[in-house]
Amino acid sequence: MSYEVKSLNEECGIFGIWGHPDAARVTYFGLHSLQHRGQEGAGIVANEDGTLRRHRGHGLLAEVFQDETYMEMLAGSSAIGHVRYSTSSKNTLNNIQPFLFEFHDGQVALAHNGNLTNAKSLRRMLEEDGTIFHSTSDTEILMHLIRKSTKETFIEKLKEALNVVKGAFAYLLMNETQMVAALDPNGFRPLTIGQMTNGAYVVASETCALEVSGAKFICDVKPGEIVIIDDNGYRIERYTDDVQYAICSMEYVYFARPDSNIAGINVHSARKKTGSNLAKEAPVEADMVIGVPNSSLSAASGYAETSGIPYEMGLVKNQYVARTFIQPTQELREQGVRMKLSAVRGVVEGKKVIMVDDSIVRGTTSKRIVQLLKEAGAKEVHVRIASPPLKYPSFYGIDIQTRNELIAANHTVEEIREWIGADSLYYLSEQGLIDGIGLDFDAPYSGLCMAHFNGDYPTKLYDYEESYLKSLEETTFFLDE
Amino acid sequence: MSYEVKSLNEECGIFGIWGHPDAARVTYFGLHSLQHRGQEGAGIVANEDGTLRRHRGHGLLAEVFQDETYMEMLAGSSAIGHVRYSTSSKNTLNNIQPFLFEFHDGQVALAHNGNLTNAKSLRRMLEEDGTIFHSTSDTEILMHLIRKSTKETFIEKLKEALNVVKGAFAYLLMNETQMVAALDPNGFRPLTIGQMTNGAYVVASETCALEVSGAKFICDVKPGEIVIIDDNGYRIERYTDDVQYAICSMEYVYFARPDSNIAGINVHSARKKTGSNLAKEAPVEADMVIGVPNSSLSAASGYAETSGIPYEMGLVKNQYVARTFIQPTQELREQGVRMKLSAVRGVVEGKKVIMVDDSIVRGTTSKRIVQLLKEAGAKEVHVRIASPPLKYPSFYGIDIQTRNELIAANHTVEEIREWIGADSLYYLSEQGLIDGIGLDFDAPYSGLCMAHFNGDYPTKLYDYEESYLKSLEETTFFLDE
Amino acid sequence: MSYEVKSLNEECGIFGIWGHPDAARVTYFGLHSLQHRGQEGAGIVANEDGTLRRHRGHGLLAEVFQDETYMEMLAGSSAIGHVRYSTSSKNTLNNIQPFLFEFHDGQVALAHNGNLTNAKSLRRMLEEDGTIFHSTSDTEILMHLIRKSTKETFIEKLKEALNVVKGAFAYLLMNETQMVAALDPNGFRPLTIGQMTNGAYVVASETCALEVSGAKFICDVKPGEIVIIDDNGYRIERYTDDVQYAICSMEYVYFARPDSNIAGINVHSARKKTGSNLAKEAPVEADMVIGVPNSSLSAASGYAETSGIPYEMGLVKNQYVARTFIQPTQELREQGVRMKLSAVRGVVEGKKVIMVDDSIVRGTTSKRIVQLLKEAGAKEVHVRIASPPLKYPSFYGIDIQTRNELIAANHTVEEIREWIGADSLYYLSEQGLIDGIGLDFDAPYSGLCMAHFNGDYPTKLYDYEESYLKSLEETTFFLDE
Amino acid sequence: MSYEVKSLNEECGIFGIWGHPDAARVTYFGLHSLQHRGQEGAGIVANEDGTLRRHRGHGLLAEVFQDETYMEMLAGSSAIGHVRYSTSSKNTLNNIQPFLFEFHDGQVALAHNGNLTNAKSLRRMLEEDGTIFHSTSDTEILMHLIRKSTKETFIEKLKEALNVVKGAFAYLLMNETQMVAALDPNGFRPLTIGQMTNGAYVVASETCALEVSGAKFICDVKPGEIVIIDDNGYRIERYTDDVQYAICSMEYVYFARPDSNIAGINVHSARKKTGSNLAKEAPVEADMVIGVPNSSLSAASGYAETSGIPYEMGLVKNQYVARTFIQPTQELREQGVRMKLSAVRGVVEGKKVIMVDDSIVRGTTSKRIVQLLKEAGAKEVHVRIASPPLKYPSFYGIDIQTRNELIAANHTVEEIREWIGADSLYYLSEQGLIDGIGLDFDAPYSGLCMAHFNGDYPTKLYDYEESYLKSLEETTFFLDE
Repeated sequence: MSYEVKSLNEECGIFGIWGHPDAARVTYFGLHSLQHRGQEGAGIVANEDGTLRRHRGHGLLAEVFQDETYMEMLAGSSAIGHVRYSTSSKNTLNNIQPFLFEFHDGQVALAHNGNLTNAKSLRRMLEEDGTIFHSTSDTEILMHLIRKSTKETFIEKLKEALNVVKGAFAYLLMNETQMVAALDPNGFRPLTIGQMTNGAYVVASETCALEVSGAKFICDVKPGEIVIIDDNGYRIERYTDDVQYAICSMEYVYFARPDSNIAGINVHSARKKTGSNLAKEAPVEADMVIGVPNSSLSAASGYAETSGIPYEMGLVKNQYVARTFIQPTQELREQGVRMKLSAVRGVVEGKKVIMVDDSIVRGTTSKRIVQLLKEAGAKEVHVRIASPPLKYPSFYGIDIQTRNELIAANHTVEEIREWIGADSLYYLSEQGLIDGIGLDFDAPYSGLCMAHFNGDYPTKLYDYEESYLKSLEETTFFLDE
Repeated sequence: MSYEVKSLNEECGIFGIWGHPDAARVTYFGLHSLQHRGQEGAGIVANEDGTLRRHRGHGLLAEVFQDETYMEMLAGSSAIGHVRYSTSSKNTLNNIQPFLFEFHDGQVALAHNGNLTNAKSLRRMLEEDGTIFHSTSDTEILMHLIRKSTKETFIEKLKEALNVVKGAFAYLLMNETQMVAALDPNGFRPLTIGQMTNGAYVVASETCALEVSGAKFICDVKPGEIVIIDDNGYRIERYTDDVQYAICSMEYVYFARPDSNIAGINVHSARKKTGSNLAKEAPVEADMVIGVPNSSLSAASGYAETSGIPYEMGLVKNQYVARTFIQPTQELREQGVRMKLSAVRGVVEGKKVIMVDDSIVRGTTSKRIVQLLKEAGAKEVHVRIASPPLKYPSFYGIDIQTRNELIAANHTVEEIREWIGADSLYYLSEQGLIDGIGLDFDAPYSGLCMAHFNGDYPTKLYDYEESYLKSLEETTFFLDE
Repeated sequence: MSYEVKSLNEECGIFGIWGHPDAARVTYFGLHSLQHRGQEGAGIVANEDGTLRRHRGHGLLAEVFQDETYMEMLAGSSAIGHVRYSTSSKNTLNNIQPFLFEFHDGQVALAHNGNLTNAKSLRRMLEEDGTIFHSTSDTEILMHLIRKSTKETFIEKLKEALNVVKGAFAYLLMNETQMVAALDPNGFRPLTIGQMTNGAYVVASETCALEVSGAKFICDVKPGEIVIIDDNGYRIERYTDDVQYAICSMEYVYFARPDSNIAGINVHSARKKTGSNLAKEAPVEADMVIGVPNSSLSAASGYAETSGIPYEMGLVKNQYVARTFIQPTQELREQGVRMKLSAVRGVVEGKKVIMVDDSIVRGTTSKRIVQLLKEAGAKEVHVRIASPPLKYPSFYGIDIQTRNELIAANHTVEEIREWIGADSLYYLSEQGLIDGIGLDFDAPYSGLCMAHFNGDYPTKLYDYEESYLKSLEETTFFLDE
Repeated sequence: MSYEVKSLNEECGIFGIWGHPDAARVTYFGLHSLQHRGQEGAGIVANEDGTLRRHRGHGLLAEVFQDETYMEMLAGSSAIGHVRYSTSSKNTLNNIQPFLFEFHDGQVALAHNGNLTNAKSLRRMLEEDGTIFHSTSDTEILMHLIRKSTKETFIEKLKEALNVVKGAFAYLLMNETQMVAALDPNGFRPLTIGQMTNGAYVVASETCALEVSGAKFICDVKPGEIVIIDDNGYRIERYTDDVQYAICSMEYVYFARPDSNIAGINVHSARKKTGSNLAKEAPVEADMVIGVPNSSLSAASGYAETSGIPYEMGLVKNQYVARTFIQPTQELREQGVRMKLSAVRGVVEGKKVIMVDDSIVRGTTSKRIVQLLKEAGAKEVHVRIASPPLKYPSFYGIDIQTRNELIAANHTVEEIREWIGADSLYYLSEQGLIDGIGLDFDAPYSGLCMAHFNGDYPTKLYDYEESYLKSLEETTFFLDE
C-alpha cells in the first residue's frame, strides 16, 4: 500500500488521555486525527485500575482496530496511543508502539515521536553491561536508562534518563498511577496539552487531536519540560534548563494538519502567508493558480489571493486508497500514478497555469505532475515552491538520511526546472518562509529549525556526525533517472 | 465502515476495456477512479480468448483485490468491472456485479448502473413462467429477457430486452467476442467511450476514468443507443427512437468527480458557476467563504470569486478512513463525527463565515457542521446551498426512496435554518442551477432531470407509482430528532 | 491442504433437523460427524418461522463456521446442512450447498449427495428453453424441474422432477413449512431418519450423525421413497415403484464411518468380517498384522483375530492436519509423506508384517507405505486388500471418472505386487466381500452395487455411456510413474 | 478450539537442524510430528549465512505457516523450531518461541521444553538489577544469565547459566555459527540427536521427528549434557556431574507418540506391556476390550492379547477438528462431546465391555465415556487404567499445578468408580507401570519420575515449595460437579 504521493514521511504521532471512562476510544479518535503522522503501525495501551493492556498492529489505525473486540478489551480510564512511520528501525511488530514493559513491581507504557542522535552509542554501552534489547527501536533505550537509574522515584529516574538521551524526542509514558509527557530541549516536535469538559487531561502531538477529542487547549509542552498528570491534576516540571527553541520548519510546511496550531500559529494560515510571500517574490502572468492536493492548497490560495489570479481546481486527488500492484510495464506504472492524482482537462486545457507545491524532495513527483498538466493541455506550467530548496538530511525524525535523496542538494534550480519540465521554477526564500510562519522566539530563525535548508543543525549530531560529513562530500543524485 | 459524511449515495460505476494485454489491471485503475460511485462491493470479469473469469467481493476495490493473485487470475485482453452501492437489493455476494452467466453454449458478463422502475412486475412475470432468480438484484432481469428472446442474434435479443425494461440504466455486457454498452432512453446516468493509444476501446461511467486509464475521449453514449465493440472496432446502433435527454442533475451537483465532463460540461466548472450564481442570488456580508469538503469546494470558490470575499480552509476533512464503532454514549458519537470533519479554530474564530454546501438531505450533517463552526468560534454562519431544495424521491438510482428522508419536503427554509442553527440560509434557484450547469439540449430544463427538486419525473413510474403517491401524502420528518 | 492419504473421495454428506430450538447448532454437530464425506465446502440453511437464512464457505466445517456470529445468525427451529467434495463441477462458492432459492412467493433450500447420469442432457434441454443456471452443479437441475412443473403442490412437483433425474441421489429439501428427503430408485447412497428425545426429526447420510446429535434411529430411507417432515410429524411416500437395491459397496469398504450402520449392518463389523474372510482366503505366515490407519484398522483386526497372528500398531497417522507445501525436491516430497503417516521402527524392525488395506486406487500410496515399512526394518511385507480389484469408474458420486486412474484396470495382480514392492499381494474375492458385508436383499449381489469391481452397472449410464465405452478401450496407466 | 478430549497437556516440543539446504522446511516436518506436544503456538528461526530470521504465531503449525511466503522468507541451512502449550505464562505473541535476541554483536535464538522451579526468584533478582523482561516466559531468564555472565565464550557462559536454573529443561539454542542442545540434570524430558543422509544433524524432542525428517538416530541427550553442533560436526560436553535419571513417566503413559523411542524403549510397546500387566493384575470376564482413542489403543490391545478377549472398536474419535461453540444448554454441551468421540452402538450393544484408558485426571472425561457406552447399549463397563492414580501436581512441565484438579488426590478408587458410573475400576500398580516400561537405570524407580503418583519429587521444589505444601492440606475436589 502506498498512501502518499510525496516520499517525505514524519516519524510518529502520540496521544494520551487521563480520566475518561472511554479512554481507549477517545485515544482512537485522537490517533485518527494524527494518522497523517504515521501509517505503518498503530497501538493503544489502556489502564484499568492500574492494569495496563495493549493492542497494536501493522497498518492504518482502522485496520489495526478493525475488530471491535480489541476496543472492548482496552477498558479503563486512561490510555496512551501511537501511530508510526518507521525510519530508523525495522518494521516488525516488536517495534510498534506504545511499548509495554512488565515488571514484578508494575507496568510502564512508553510512546515516542522523534529520533535520538546518540541511540547507537547508548545501545552499545547498555548491551556491554548485559542489557538485552527486544526491539530495534531507539525508544526502548529510555526505559533501560530509567530502570538502571539509582534515583528514588519514577519521575527522578525519568529526569535522569532524559538528560542522557540526545536529539529530538516527544515522549509519552504511563504507569499505574500517572501519565507523563516530556519534550526535548529544542522542541523539535509539537506536543500539546488540553482538557475535556469532564476534566480529563489530553496530551497530543497536534492541536487538531484536541479538537477531535473535544478537549480545550491548555498549553504547549515547552522544550525541557515534563508534564505529570494523575488523578490530582497536572503539574509541569523541568529536567533541564539548557533549552532553545528549534521547531522543525517542515511541520509548518508539510507535516502538520492545516487545522493544527503549533506554538500558537495556525498551520493553514502560515501556509497561506508563505503562498502570499511567494506571490510577492516570484510573480508570473498566468490564467490560474492551482495547488498540489492536499498539502499545498493553502499556499496556493494565498498565492492566488495576493496575485489576483483565479484559484482553480486543476488537480484532483482520489480520496480512496489505492493498492499499488507490481506493474509489469511502464505504461501501467504511469496509469498507477494517475489513479492517485488527475489533472482536470476541462480546467487547464489551453491555459497558463501556476502550480504551487510546498516542497520538492526527489523531484520525481513534480516532474510527473507537470507532465500530467501538460498532457491535459496546459499551455504553460510555472512551478512555485512555498519553501526553500531541501538540501540537508534530517536526524530529528524525518526519513531523509542522506543528501543523495535530495535533488536540490546536487542540482541548481535551473537544472531542476529543466528536468521537471516546468516553464519556470521558483523557491521561496528562507526569510520568506520565516516571515510567513511568523514565530518570534528569541532564538536563531525566530525559533525554527532551518537545518534542512541550510545545514545549520541546532544540536551536536553525535552518532550521525560521521555519516553527515560523508554525505557532504558525495554527489550521486543524477537527473537522468 | 462509513466513508462519507453525506447520506446521499449513487448506485454504481462501470468500466470496460476491449483490446489491451492487461485488461483487468486497466479496469482496476478505471474502477478506482469511479470508487466514489460505489463503495460496498466491486468485481471484474476478464475475457481471455473467449473464457470469462471473475473475482468480486464486498467493500472497497482495494480490499476486494488486496491479494494480487486475483489480478493474475484475471488474464485476458478484455474486461468489464463494476463498483457498487446497494439501494434496492440486499447486500449479499450474489448481488455484487458484474454478473457472470454460464451456458452450455457460452458465457455472458453483465454490469448495470441505474434502477429499473418496472423490475418488480417483470420479476413476478418471469417467475410465474418458471424462471429462477439467483440474486435479488434488478440487473439479472435483463439476462433472462435476453435468453427468453426468440430473436436470432445476441444483439437483436438484447435490443428486444432493452425495450422491455424501464427506468434508468447504463448497461455493460461482455461475451466471448464482443463488449456492448447500452443507455436508457433518457440518459439519466453518464456513459462515455474512449480509446487508448494502443487502440483499445474503453467504456466508463465518467470521463475521469478515461483520463486515468490513459484513454482519449471519443464520445458520450446517447439515450437509446447501444455501442458494440469487438476486434473490428466499434459501431453505434439504436434500440429505440423514443428518446429525450434528462441527465440527472445531481450528477453535476454532487455525484460526479470534478475532473469529469458530462455531456461536454466540466463538473468542477459547472459547480463553480453555480457557486457564482449563488453569490449573485444571495449575497451576504462576511469575512470569508468556506466550502464543505470535498464536493462543495468548487462551488465555494465560485462564490468567493464572484463576491470578492476571501476563500479560506475553515473545515478539514480527514483523508483516512475511519471505522465507526458502536458508540456507547452521545459524547462519543459527537467525537466520531469530528474524526471525519474538523472546523479550523485558527481560521474561523471570531469571524463571519459563509459556508457553501452542494445540497441538504436530512439536514443532520449541516446542523453538525454549523455547530462545529460555532464551537470553533465562528461569530456568524451563513449557509448557502448550491442547488434547490431536495423535495422528491429518486427512482433512477439514488438511495432516496421516500420523502420522509428529505427535510425540505416537509419544512420551510426558515424552519430548516432555525433547526440547523445557521444565521441565514439560502438555496440556489432552479434556474440558477440550470444556467450554472449550462446544458442546451432541446428538452425540458435544457436536458436535465430536475425531478428531485420539483417532482417533474420524465418517465412513468410503473411499480413505484403507488409508493410515490403515498409518499406525497405523508409528512413524518420531524426536526426534533 | 490435503487431509487424506488415499485419493478416493466421496461426494457429500447431508443432515437436516426439524423441530429443535437450536436447529443450526445440532446441524453443525451432525455435519461434523459427516465431515469424512466432504472437506471442500460446507453450508447450513436455517428456517426461523418461515424465513430461510444461509451461511456457506470453502473448506472444513470448522473453518466455515469459525466465526460464531454465523451460528447466531442461523436462528430457527429447523435447518439443513451439507458437506461437500466436488467431483463433477467447479469449486466456486456458487457450487457450495445447500442451495437457497428465493422466489416472490417463498424460499426453498436444497442439498444433494450423489451424481446424476443425465445431468448434461437435462441442463442443455432446460437452457434451450431459456433457463439460466447459476451454478455448474447438477443439483440445481432439480429445482428448475420443480419450478417448471405444472403440478399443483410442492410435493407433486417434486415427485414429477424425481422421475426425470437419473443416477444416484439423496436429496434434502426445506421450504417454509416442511423438510423433504428423497432417495434414488437404487439407494446408492445411505440416508437415514431418526428422532430426538424432544421429538425433533433428523435426516442424515449416516447413522453416526444420529448418534452424535442424540437422535434415536427410526428407519432408513428406501429406494424410491420421499420422506416429508413437518410440524405434524413425518410420512413416507413413493415417487416410483421401479426400484432395486444397489447400495454402493465402497460405502462399507471405505467411505462410511465405522460406527455407522447401513441397511442395518454395522460398518466396523462388516469390515472386520471382510478381514476375517481375507485371512481365510489368503493366509500367510508372519509376526504381526498391521492396518493402514484409519479406514483399514477394522479389517486388520479381523484378519488378526482369525489368523491368530498378533495385531500391532506398525503405522501411526499424524492426527494433525498438514499443509502440503510445494516441495522443491524429491527428498522433501518424501518427507512430506512421512508427515502424515509413519512406520513404527520399534515395532516392525526385523519382523514379517501383514499389511491390511481396504483398497488400492492408483497404487502410489500402497507403494509408499510398503517402502516406509521396509525402511523401518520390516523383513517381509505381505499386502492384503479387503476388497476386490477396483477396475471400473464410478458415475454415482465417487471421483473416479476414468479407468486410467485405476491401477487394477490395466495391470495384473502380479504386476501390481512387483510395482508396490510387496512380498505378496492378495485381493479379497467378490463373494468374500458380499458375504463379509452380509446384506440379503432380493437383488443382484444381495443388494450391493459391485460395478467398481466388475463393471455391472445397475442402471443405464445416459450421458456417461460414450465416455465409459471409450474408457474400456484405453490403457494408459503406466507403472513407471 | 479444543483439540483434545483429555485435559492433560505437555508444555512443548523442540526441533533443530544444522546443515540442510531446506532447513526451515525440514523443521516444519519435524515440528509437525511433535504437534501433539503443543498446539497453542509455533515458531521457526532460520539461519542463513549467519543471519537469523523468525516467523511465529498462535495456533497449530499449519495455521501459523499457512502462507507459504513465510517459509520462503526462512531461507538458510540451519533452523530451530518450537511448538508450545502454555502453562506458566500468558498466551501472548511475545511468549511464543523460539525467542530471537538481537545484539549489536550478533543474534541468538532460544527454545525451551520444560518448567523452571526457581524462575520467579531468578526473575525478581534480575529485575532488581535493572533487567527488563520482554516476555512473561521462564525461557527468557536463561538468556539474561548468559549475557550477564563474565565468562569468555558463549559455551562457557551457557554452562554457567545452566547451573543457575533449576527444574526441568531441554534447551535448544542457535547463534550465527552453532546450534546447542542442553538437558537438565534429571532428564525429565526426552531429547534426541540424529543425522540425515546428507550429513545434517537433527535435534528433536522425540525420535518420531527423526523418522519424519529422514534422520537416523544417533543418541539421546543425557542428563547434564550439552551437545554443540556446528559445521565441523557435533561434540558432547557436560555442564554438571550431579545427575540422576528421572524421566517423566507420563511421557510413556500419555504424552509421547507411540512410534517414538525414549531411552531406547518404544512407547507403543511399553504401553502394550502395561496393558498386558493390567490384564494380569485385574482380569474380568467380558465380551470385548476397547481402548479410548487414540492414546490408549496400545494398552488396550495389550490387555486384549493377554486376556484372550477380542479387541474391538467400540469408540470412534472424529479425526476432524471441532470448534467448541459456547453452548447455551446442557443438551448441546453433551452433543458437543459426542462430536469428538462416539460409542459404536453396533459393536457394544448388549455387551460386557472392558474399557482401557491410560489415566484419569479430573474424571469428567471417563464419566462421559462410560455414559456414552451405556447409552449405546453396553451391558457392563469395566474401566481399567494403565497407570496408577494421579495424586500429585507437576512442577516439571505438565499443566497440573494443584491437587484440586486431580480426582484421585481426594477420593478413593471406589468413590471414583461410583462417580464415573463404571461396573468396576482398577488402576495399574506402580510396579506394574515400572515393569511395563522396562527402564533399568541405576536410579530410583529404574530412572522414572513417579512423583505424579507418589509425591516423591526427585529435586527441591524451590519457588513451588510453599504452594505444594499448601496443596497437600487442601481437599476441594468434589464429585458432585
